[in-house]
Amino acid sequence: MSVVITDPPRVAIETAKAFASYGVATVHEAQGRTGLLAAYMRPIYPGAKIAGSAVTVSIPPADNWMLHVAVEQCQAGDVLVVAPTSPCDTGYFGELLACSLAARGVLGLVIEAGCRDVAALTEMRFPVWSKAVSAQGTVKETLGSVNVPVVCAGQLVHPGDLVIADDDGIVIVPRAAAEEVLCKSEARERKEEQTRARLQAGELGLDIYGMRERLAEKGLTYRRAAES
Amino acid sequence: MSVVITDPPRVAIETAKAFASYGVATVHEAQGRTGLLAAYMRPIYPGAKIAGSAVTVSIPPADNWMLHVAVEQCQAGDVLVVAPTSPCDTGYFGELLACSLAARGVLGLVIEAGCRDVAALTEMRFPVWSKAVSAQGTVKETLGSVNVPVVCAGQLVHPGDLVIADDDGIVIVPRAAAEEVLCKSEARERKEEQTRARLQAGELGLDIYGMRERLAEKGLTYRRAAES
Amino acid sequence: MSVVITDPPRVAIETAKAFASYGVATVHEAQGRTGLLAAYMRPIYPGAKIAGSAVTVSIPPADNWMLHVAVEQCQAGDVLVVAPTSPCDTGYFGELLACSLAARGVLGLVIEAGCRDVAALTEMRFPVWSKAVSAQGTVKETLGSVNVPVVCAGQLVHPGDLVIADDDGIVIVPRAAAEEVLCKSEARERKEEQTRARLQAGELGLDIYGMRERLAEKGLTYRRAAES
Amino acid sequence: MSVVITDPPRVAIETAKAFASYGVATVHEAQGRTGLLAAYMRPIYPGAKIAGSAVTVSIPPADNWMLHVAVEQCQAGDVLVVAPTSPCDTGYFGELLACSLAARGVLGLVIEAGCRDVAALTEMRFPVWSKAVSAQGTVKETLGSVNVPVVCAGQLVHPGDLVIADDDGIVIVPRAAAEEVLCKSEARERKEEQTRARLQAGELGLDIYGMRERLAEKGLTYRRAAES
Amino acid sequence: MSVVITDPPRVAIETAKAFASYGVATVHEAQGRTGLLAAYMRPIYPGAKIAGSAVTVSIPPADNWMLHVAVEQCQAGDVLVVAPTSPCDTGYFGELLACSLAARGVLGLVIEAGCRDVAALTEMRFPVWSKAVSAQGTVKETLGSVNVPVVCAGQLVHPGDLVIADDDGIVIVPRAAAEEVLCKSEARERKEEQTRARLQAGELGLDIYGMRERLAEKGLTYRRAAES
Amino acid sequence: MSVVITDPPRVAIETAKAFASYGVATVHEAQGRTGLLAAYMRPIYPGAKIAGSAVTVSIPPADNWMLHVAVEQCQAGDVLVVAPTSPCDTGYFGELLACSLAARGVLGLVIEAGCRDVAALTEMRFPVWSKAVSAQGTVKETLGSVNVPVVCAGQLVHPGDLVIADDDGIVIVPRAAAEEVLCKSEARERKEEQTRARLQAGELGLDIYGMRERLAEKGLTYRRAAES
Repeated sequence: MSVVITDPPRVAIETAKAFASYGVATVHEAQGRTGLLAAYMRPIYPGAKIAGSAVTVSIPPADNWMLHVAVEQCQAGDVLVVAPTSPCDTGYFGELLACSLAARGVLGLVIEAGCRDVAALTEMRFPVWSKAVSAQGTVKETLGSVNVPVVCAGQLVHPGDLVIADDDGIVIVPRAAAEEVLCKSEARERKEEQTRARLQAGELGLDIYGMRERLAEKGLTYRRAAES
Repeated sequence: MSVVITDPPRVAIETAKAFASYGVATVHEAQGRTGLLAAYMRPIYPGAKIAGSAVTVSIPPADNWMLHVAVEQCQAGDVLVVAPTSPCDTGYFGELLACSLAARGVLGLVIEAGCRDVAALTEMRFPVWSKAVSAQGTVKETLGSVNVPVVCAGQLVHPGDLVIADDDGIVIVPRAAAEEVLCKSEARERKEEQTRARLQAGELGLDIYGMRERLAEKGLTYRRAAES
Repeated sequence: MSVVITDPPRVAIETAKAFASYGVATVHEAQGRTGLLAAYMRPIYPGAKIAGSAVTVSIPPADNWMLHVAVEQCQAGDVLVVAPTSPCDTGYFGELLACSLAARGVLGLVIEAGCRDVAALTEMRFPVWSKAVSAQGTVKETLGSVNVPVVCAGQLVHPGDLVIADDDGIVIVPRAAAEEVLCKSEARERKEEQTRARLQAGELGLDIYGMRERLAEKGLTYRRAAES
Repeated sequence: MSVVITDPPRVAIETAKAFASYGVATVHEAQGRTGLLAAYMRPIYPGAKIAGSAVTVSIPPADNWMLHVAVEQCQAGDVLVVAPTSPCDTGYFGELLACSLAARGVLGLVIEAGCRDVAALTEMRFPVWSKAVSAQGTVKETLGSVNVPVVCAGQLVHPGDLVIADDDGIVIVPRAAAEEVLCKSEARERKEEQTRARLQAGELGLDIYGMRERLAEKGLTYRRAAES
Repeated sequence: MSVVITDPPRVAIETAKAFASYGVATVHEAQGRTGLLAAYMRPIYPGAKIAGSAVTVSIPPADNWMLHVAVEQCQAGDVLVVAPTSPCDTGYFGELLACSLAARGVLGLVIEAGCRDVAALTEMRFPVWSKAVSAQGTVKETLGSVNVPVVCAGQLVHPGDLVIADDDGIVIVPRAAAEEVLCKSEARERKEEQTRARLQAGELGLDIYGMRERLAEKGLTYRRAAES
Repeated sequence: MSVVITDPPRVAIETAKAFASYGVATVHEAQGRTGLLAAYMRPIYPGAKIAGSAVTVSIPPADNWMLHVAVEQCQAGDVLVVAPTSPCDTGYFGELLACSLAARGVLGLVIEAGCRDVAALTEMRFPVWSKAVSAQGTVKETLGSVNVPVVCAGQLVHPGDLVIADDDGIVIVPRAAAEEVLCKSEARERKEEQTRARLQAGELGLDIYGMRERLAEKGLTYRRAAES
């Protein structure tokens, strides 16, 4: 039942890097509003932004043994994605594992559980998105699996899928869709730039998006406060 | 049922500005411990402080159409206050809407739901107090109302009420009470300044507030650890 | 029932100070994974780190009278630890009490309830770990006790116990164990330093900790993605 | 600030009684999807159903003194609605207060806080909708108000408003709208009865509501599993 | 993007029925502790037990249009499994939809959202497992998909997978594994029956499972209270 | 570190049995409002009521090995009290362990974690108070301790303490205080019986408790609705 899948296909590094300009919200919209992890997954410090290929870990509750196994499967540009088999806020991950991952060029960690050594991780700028911060340690007794499909924070993640994370949260782009979603993200961003400029100049979304007619059709009415 | 009330009376800009020196806790105390929104409403970045007139929005779950309608009703010095008709953490608000509000001189947003583009909002210093951060997008299908009374995070807010928000949370001052609460906030602050100086000099609250006698009456006793 | 125990034995100041180099996670591990408060206790600003002797307060819900009593029992190097007798998120503590504690050399506050004046506390660098931030005020009607054993955020705390708090949370070291836990923390830190260096140089935990054999015994298997 | 308003206008008893046949969901729909309390308000036992005029109480946290004051303001057919001024799960209400209310013909209690003596309340069939069950007692030190407007579980309630509660939760009907909402509830129920019969006979909602065309317009497509 | 997959393969009715004797905990164990939905999914009344093939629905927040579409895809022995695309507690489902499903022989509903008409559903014994009970209604504006893979309460569900639900929660058995898991459940149950008899007769698990030696090896020690 | 303390002193069986007539709320009041476990501990079925001596278990997260060890330490009239060393909702306990405990005359279980086989436990009337219901299984790898002091749901429990649990929750009475709290519970009950009769007869608490004068002193005012 416990297996480590080695060398899964990954998103090309250049493709992943090209996502650097696009936020999680943009990518999520660009791929049709799918792939978002639950909002309780929060970054341990503000301002981090990563995009890389998922190395996935299915892990028992309160037991971080498989993280050590997973490190060996990671390479530069990867993002470790960890999902416990039952809900758990224990601190699976800290500074030492971060040193090990950073030494291999791993970009960051997404874990639906707890993380510790937050001060050290912040200082070394190793970003983590987690469900909790907890100093509580784990044991090393029970196996799990590496690079199998996992459900992490409500989202199905396959090894090699693209993981994009920033202050808004985390979005998963299926590996096969990465190029297409990149194009759509670029297109969306270009369009938003124009809209942004018009909004900053004082134009209204009501006019830019042509909403007034449909609002009236739906029955929206206006009344001066004095009359109310 | 869906209506936009235009040009409601507002708190005078100078009055609102005068609240700049007083924190949410001070104002909340000054008006008799009323008007506080629920503690799950948190700022998206630390250090923001605003005071302005409420433009209120009653909005359907996961549908941000009415925010575009509301923008047009906002003017310089306003604060947008948004309450969904059923609980919802979806990301109703992001950078584009913030650009539009900022262009009109709106001071910030209070929303009992989700907000996204947090990195961009932080960079442009457009403050938001929300129940969640979520990249999840909304649809534009269903109407709501603007400038009607709403219950936001457990507090009744009328359009034109004064909204004060800082790192402690958000407090609502009814428009008609703004001048009086300003006076009381000033008085409270003056008094606290004196107390602060005495406490910093090492005097005890027990003595400054004369609490010892009433504590003894209630039956408080002291015992040395050795005796216990 | 309401009592103030004065002058309980404390951890020696130099012992407490020596803990400055060790994080909460390290100390928690060093004493056998005990003493950790619940993960919902969070610092009001990042980067604070304290270690000092507990002055404990058992306090009624939404009533902060006993905090004023407790201040008098505090001395330099202490940490105030406050536990309500029933769950309560009200803002028991703010800037004035912090001024009073700071004037006495108190290092910080741990409170399983709410805290307010967060902006001011951040500016004066008086650290607080709390369950909530709330501007909601309290009354002064009902007694409690000072320097009695309390359960705070799931952990038993005796007056004079050592309290260590950082970005990861809070751990309690029983007073009698402080010296021993200090030694064990030092030992653990020294060992981790060596491991850290090896991990940063690219060695794997799998090899450093000699895990491969036991993993194989438990049945871990490897399979190339192509074969899967 | 603390006031008891006596003899507020109420909904006519016969009107309230006529709501007995309509569930909370029906009434909520009938009045345009407004007036619903938050879903965390749950009945202490299944199967209760009440409809009566609100006697409202604004009450301090963990202090039930004003409940005793409120009892005197209650009459047959009333429902007591209690909202603490800050969040609190303490057990404000138990068997003795229930005996007192039952003796006056009060139909039940809605409280955004805790309730206790659940076994006794269940046996005497005095229904309570609460946010928590907790044996934790309260003090009697601080005043509040009776029959003022309160926000309870996210909903504004005026004294004399109609309160309807069942296993689905609680809905408030403004007093002035009670007759109209009763008519609309009756109409809705009649219509639903016909639909129910058709659905039970195996007709599809797709056909009864004529949804197929609009679904197709929106772009819904069908595909056999074999083809997918 | 919105699609209805018709006639997906299902688990054989007799296989599903054979699971009637095995509880969710047994099946979950029998298939290696996988497939369990999150513990916040609760039955609306106690004592229900179902096992049937999943018809899955991916549905927008606060919009139940696709449930009407899904009904037509259901047949006798099915279980409807509904997952919103973003978190939502709104009451998507009530008595009328239940009548429609019951008329087709559907066994029950699993929905990671809200349900209403709980009293009526209880009376007609149509079981629902949901995240919330809420009378709040939904709109019918936005499409979703039927019989596509969904993540529901943290678990991946394919159309045609076996859904087993009882008072303990819900477990998913992949369609292809149903026969094997049935065998393993039977075997487990047989073994547990023997163990149960021995435990009821007063034998200890320590002896039945032969745990004493391994406990001693791990270092477990016994001490009489008098000595402690 | 892992130890089993055998034969701790217990509360006399007759004393424990005498508590049968007093609910948790009564006992909690009788001993000065102490000893109550957190309100998230809920019974798995309504109507159960137990009072017995605690056998305590400190247990690792998601590992129920020590429960088997604890069974042997239990005797007739005991209540098993289980506290994980870090927060965990996993299903530690089910039908088989219940059979084993029931065979020894154990009255019930209090566990700050998950429980499963709820339908079977309900049928055999073995009451459990837990934080969650979850079918998720546990491992048997790591030791804990039996009959050491534990903090369970915010309350310190020593082995041999009296545990009283009903629909309102759970209260702990220290062993040495059991006789005294029994007397006080009896006295309180007698007094409440008289009050209950007077309240049922229509007298007001305001008069029975003589509250009117103090309310007036505090400033409570009455105003007819017509005047407001």
